[in-house]
Amino acid sequence: MTLNPQYVMVGKEFVPQYYAMFDDPLKRAELQKLYSPTDSYMTFEGDQVQGAAKIIEKVLGLSIQKISRVITTIDSQPTIDGGILVNVMGRLQCDEDPTHSFSQVFLLKPKAGAFYIAHDVFRLGLHNTA
Amino acid sequence: MTLNPQYVMVGKEFVPQYYAMFDDPLKRAELQKLYSPTDSYMTFEGDQVQGAAKIIEKVLGLSIQKISRVITTIDSQPTIDGGILVNVMGRLQCDEDPTHSFSQVFLLKPKAGAFYIAHDVFRLGLHNTA
Repeated sequence: MTLNPQYVMVGKEFVPQYYAMFDDPLKRAELQKLYSPTDSYMTFEGDQVQGAAKIIEKVLGLSIQKISRVITTIDSQPTIDGGILVNVMGRLQCDEDPTHSFSQVFLLKPKAGAFYIAHDVFRLGLHNTA
Repeated sequence: MTLNPQYVMVGKEFVPQYYAMFDDPLKRAELQKLYSPTDSYMTFEGDQVQGAAKIIEKVLGLSIQKISRVITTIDSQPTIDGGILVNVMGRLQCDEDPTHSFSQVFLLKPKAGAFYIAHDVFRLGLHNTA
């Protein structure tokens, strides 16, 4: 049992770093290094893929240019293996689409002094908030 | 590595069973048995508690009578230790309050042929959908 006592801080640091890459089309491909080549899972609006290569293919395939995002809550919990469960809620606007609420869950796992994303579940909210 | 191949089915069975207990004031106290006495975490609208006793105290302290709930999506992923990450999105109405969207994440862990809830993060959506 190795709970990470810094779990709140790790969540709060990870989330803006992740979206700084995701929301910038020039940096989006760098997200691949945050996932395991074999083990990581992503479920994006119900579509599930496994492994960093398939995950980045999914992300880049969204072909969104500009993303405006507001993070409203970050809830983190320490897992018994030194990982951190992070739940993010917020609002986003892609290109000229209406604003939507979104929810994204990350399960971060420790590896070589850093973290990788073992699990990632993204969903847009039910209703736009424009 | 013991991924549970039934993870989609487990998620789909667990979620309605959980809410059948949560949404019924006469059964709500039974939720306590789904959490670990010591290890489980719940974060409910930003308030974090640990252990089944504190979790059920939090849940019963909400003093909600009638809950009407619609589940819209259940996304499940298998974890490497035989657990299952379940992300639920939906809408709910408590007593005579306006309808809200909600998001709830469960990390289920295997124990003695069943599952317990190791992690539970609940958030209402940003805007009501009434």
